[in-house]
Amino acid sequence: MTTLIKALEWRYAVKKMNGHTVPADKLEKILDAMRLAPSSMGVQPYSVIVISDPALKEQILPLARDQKQIVDCSHLLVFAAWDNITPERAAAFLDDHATARNVSVDSLSYYKGVLDNLMKRPAEENFNWNARQAYIAFGIAIAAAAEEGVDATPMEGFNGPGLDTLLGLDQEGLRSVTILPLGYRDAENDWLAPLVKVRREKSKLVLRK
Amino acid sequence: MTTLIKALEWRYAVKKMNGHTVPADKLEKILDAMRLAPSSMGVQPYSVIVISDPALKEQILPLARDQKQIVDCSHLLVFAAWDNITPERAAAFLDDHATARNVSVDSLSYYKGVLDNLMKRPAEENFNWNARQAYIAFGIAIAAAAEEGVDATPMEGFNGPGLDTLLGLDQEGLRSVTILPLGYRDAENDWLAPLVKVRREKSKLVLRK
Repeated sequence: MTTLIKALEWRYAVKKMNGHTVPADKLEKILDAMRLAPSSMGVQPYSVIVISDPALKEQILPLARDQKQIVDCSHLLVFAAWDNITPERAAAFLDDHATARNVSVDSLSYYKGVLDNLMKRPAEENFNWNARQAYIAFGIAIAAAAEEGVDATPMEGFNGPGLDTLLGLDQEGLRSVTILPLGYRDAENDWLAPLVKVRREKSKLVLRK
Repeated sequence: MTTLIKALEWRYAVKKMNGHTVPADKLEKILDAMRLAPSSMGVQPYSVIVISDPALKEQILPLARDQKQIVDCSHLLVFAAWDNITPERAAAFLDDHATARNVSVDSLSYYKGVLDNLMKRPAEENFNWNARQAYIAFGIAIAAAAEEGVDATPMEGFNGPGLDTLLGLDQEGLRSVTILPLGYRDAENDWLAPLVKVRREKSKLVLRK
């Protein structure tokens, strides 16, 4: 087994966390890996909000069906996709590329053309595309946490618009799509801890042509 | 740097592959890691099609904007989301859980209830949700390939309906959402190989609350 496979076998969607704090260096490694996630064209059309304030977590709890990982976790990651591709975001992308690659923005006409076309699509279509890109980073964050021995519970069951309002994401053109509490399992008190991991059989999940 | 971060730094979206074959053991490790990807409720509402037949890859080439990685890769992975949640798929999920956890299907009433509710949603809503789950597995497959030293090019620029017809996915209730050629970089002839990787600054991508 590879390091990654071992880590993925070890992890599960922890239902009961013990409140212990994830050390800063581990948190940053998880975020660094997440940041390296690929995205279509490299646009990274999302932000990740890191919440550690206990009072804020208490406010989020009822927005997430009172699932206690929200308050028992160390840090709560909120993956929020851009609500749309905007001229400002496109310009920032081109600036970042020009700076990093030491070229002029004018030389990036290919990218500019693609972005201009994306901006002609309906906002909802772009949002759905942005959300998919966010899920790549979400997957890599889950893998990175597991490799650090940090538990993580992927959670979609929350009130997205409510969370967006609470965090002011709506004012920033962001829509939360999935959340990831990071922390440590309280295995003795977690009903899911002793249960075997279930995955579709490889022969059914993977089709060969 | 962690193993995963090193691997993610090493990888890039290879534009020119050299045609070498990925050994079977490496391919299976990538698929095993992908299979362990979490999904909402553990439903895994997608399949991954592995294509190695050169003649079939040639047929796919024009459906993917003639991007040569399609034919120069070793194996082409096609991530195809379920077009909907169906009674048959829900029943198979419940059977798998009952078998793996050695319980009766009747004891899984919570899962059954959730699945029944999902089946009340419009097909397109379920498809979009399924696609997001597929992107988690996509992200983990990309990470797994990098850890194996296998190059992979995430590609969304292809004719999805055309590919579905060619592969018969439409007949199986599957819709391709993203593809991933696996192989090895031909760095000398790849214009992208020497360019620096660009990612949004951490302080812009990650917001702290």
